[in-house]
Amino acid sequence: MLDSLSSPDVSTRLRAFLDDRAPATPCLVMDLDVVRANYRALRAALPEAAVFYAVKANPAPEVVAALVAEGSAFDVASTGEIDLCLAQGAAPESLSYGNPIKKPADIAHAFARGVRRFTFDSDGDLANLAEHAPGSRVSCRFLVDAPASGTPFGRKFGCAPQMALRLLARAADLGLDVDGACFHVGSQHTDPAAWTAGIAQAAWIARGLAECGVPTRSLNLGGGFPTAYRTPAPPLAAHAAAIRAAVAEHFDTAPELLIEPGRAVVATAGLIRSEVVLVSRKSDTDEHRWVYLDIGRYSGLAETENEYIAYRLRTAHPVESPDGPVIIAGPTCDGDDVLYQHTPYRLPTALRAGDHVDILDAGAYTASYSSVSFNGFPPLPTLFVG
Amino acid sequence: MLDSLSSPDVSTRLRAFLDDRAPATPCLVMDLDVVRANYRALRAALPEAAVFYAVKANPAPEVVAALVAEGSAFDVASTGEIDLCLAQGAAPESLSYGNPIKKPADIAHAFARGVRRFTFDSDGDLANLAEHAPGSRVSCRFLVDAPASGTPFGRKFGCAPQMALRLLARAADLGLDVDGACFHVGSQHTDPAAWTAGIAQAAWIARGLAECGVPTRSLNLGGGFPTAYRTPAPPLAAHAAAIRAAVAEHFDTAPELLIEPGRAVVATAGLIRSEVVLVSRKSDTDEHRWVYLDIGRYSGLAETENEYIAYRLRTAHPVESPDGPVIIAGPTCDGDDVLYQHTPYRLPTALRAGDHVDILDAGAYTASYSSVSFNGFPPLPTLFVG
Repeated sequence: MLDSLSSPDVSTRLRAFLDDRAPATPCLVMDLDVVRANYRALRAALPEAAVFYAVKANPAPEVVAALVAEGSAFDVASTGEIDLCLAQGAAPESLSYGNPIKKPADIAHAFARGVRRFTFDSDGDLANLAEHAPGSRVSCRFLVDAPASGTPFGRKFGCAPQMALRLLARAADLGLDVDGACFHVGSQHTDPAAWTAGIAQAAWIARGLAECGVPTRSLNLGGGFPTAYRTPAPPLAAHAAAIRAAVAEHFDTAPELLIEPGRAVVATAGLIRSEVVLVSRKSDTDEHRWVYLDIGRYSGLAETENEYIAYRLRTAHPVESPDGPVIIAGPTCDGDDVLYQHTPYRLPTALRAGDHVDILDAGAYTASYSSVSFNGFPPLPTLFVG
Repeated sequence: MLDSLSSPDVSTRLRAFLDDRAPATPCLVMDLDVVRANYRALRAALPEAAVFYAVKANPAPEVVAALVAEGSAFDVASTGEIDLCLAQGAAPESLSYGNPIKKPADIAHAFARGVRRFTFDSDGDLANLAEHAPGSRVSCRFLVDAPASGTPFGRKFGCAPQMALRLLARAADLGLDVDGACFHVGSQHTDPAAWTAGIAQAAWIARGLAECGVPTRSLNLGGGFPTAYRTPAPPLAAHAAAIRAAVAEHFDTAPELLIEPGRAVVATAGLIRSEVVLVSRKSDTDEHRWVYLDIGRYSGLAETENEYIAYRLRTAHPVESPDGPVIIAGPTCDGDDVLYQHTPYRLPTALRAGDHVDILDAGAYTASYSSVSFNGFPPLPTLFVG
């Protein structure tokens, strides 16, 4: 068991495992001890909050099973994720169906499996919940006006706070059990102040409901807790302090808190081993080398779209080796399958085809994004240690 | 057998098939008669060119088998695509390994299977070809300076023309069989003039090689022939005329021509049936409706990234139904899973959850891009008619 989620030994341990096993590349290796340590670190940083792991971040059954054993609850996005969690031993009452976009049949499927927590953000989904999940606990997601995150959500999810107030009052009229409001600051959020605006708006909604005679119980803060990739991120304690201060300021009675971390649980637990397919230049005077890896945007590195996530990279060359600027691309015949051409990266001058390039903190939003067969390349496999 | 690839009856026929079978949504249905008709239309438009179907556009075995029967050759991007084509009866000599990014083991695999045509664009790949595919026919891809296409390649593939000249002369020294130069104007190119610059540069390379005593045989024009989505595209005849005129102008002796169409063979042969999951508004005064479908960017509509491809949509509502502006999004909990928020789309005011939305001309670059399980949603299945 590792002591700390930020241990520099994590990637060393995983790299040693891969050196020993020498699996075909590319592959993701997940250290389940780090998953457990990250979960415990979140619990310790914000003990007043229940943790609902966002399964979408890494839906490997082994990860889910490890978190069931830790006592985690689960934020699920689909009936597929519900069935996955139940198969790994999760109790139905530990599942929250957090996707506000659901078919009536999906709600009925969840309800039949014992799921009793749902999130909505529209009249249509609310009506379906009243019909197909009667009496369930419901939260309404509102659009929070907060500074942008690393991978912002835009306006896809949530409704205006005024509309959330109306919808939650309606939910009570429809016989549903009103939990309260929820929001999400956006994935990979590095500004602890982002939660402040959402908590203030959630408190406004709760007060408005109380005035209508509808008591609320909880506040779901979503996820967004950041991982330090190439850029440092504030520690969990800073986010927890900001959340705690805003709740104390805006709520007279503290609500039950829920958080839905995904990336913060699994990112640092994963390492992708890739192989250099080719190093080339575009002309005989080109200053940059192009480094083509055997993994790209369509086999697991989807979050390099627009170069949102700049992963840390490691090679077996000594750290003091001479290096130079590179453009890094994937192996497909797709012009968009370029990982980094604007973000400056340098790799050793001695790097050659056949060398490994390890991609650190790659446990979140990677393997499950893999395309089934784009360009004839297979999906990213996952190995486990711990 | 359908008479024309632009027949308005294509989507009617596929929609009738889906109405009759009522498969679970989302799904892609491919009309193999239209695949055949598109292949024949390309052959008729440019009879002097050999057609190498770009398998990546739609690698369904049924599509490949239909094209084997038509006598097509195949542009393959990986050993996976090589094995797929051979399994469908393609002759090894009909395969061209067009991806210039290859591991030595992949080259050896291809050579062992009988593949004898390869494309390269770097010193490293050329050296590997000389070692692992001795005596094979090789083309060098150069970077063409042409107007941008609908989904441009950027600079990922190809080298400077001067470097291509050097590399092809080196290829001859290494005992490889020099085919000539190749280029690609970028996928979904709607300007027939795009080919002109590339053909002029290819002729410059061929003359330079002739001066070095290295004769060349062919010119590979790549793909890029456009599909008319919401915006009309010039007919194949216009592209063929531009190609023919440029070859006549720049080459003293006409080279053997090769084309590598993907989209132009399969796009119009496919239709995706989706279902509306939810219609909502973000506030009680929101002018736009949000329409959430059960397919999105991660289950087949990857080419809606940056709204590059604006598909035509059809519903069962009468075409004269009142309509209004919509933002269209996919079903996952991912903020980037939005199909169209900048491109203006209007859908019927009467559209409701449970209604079908059919996505036309969706046979290219869809099913094979599907993620394995993102958010717990399964990959896009394909059905076949014809």
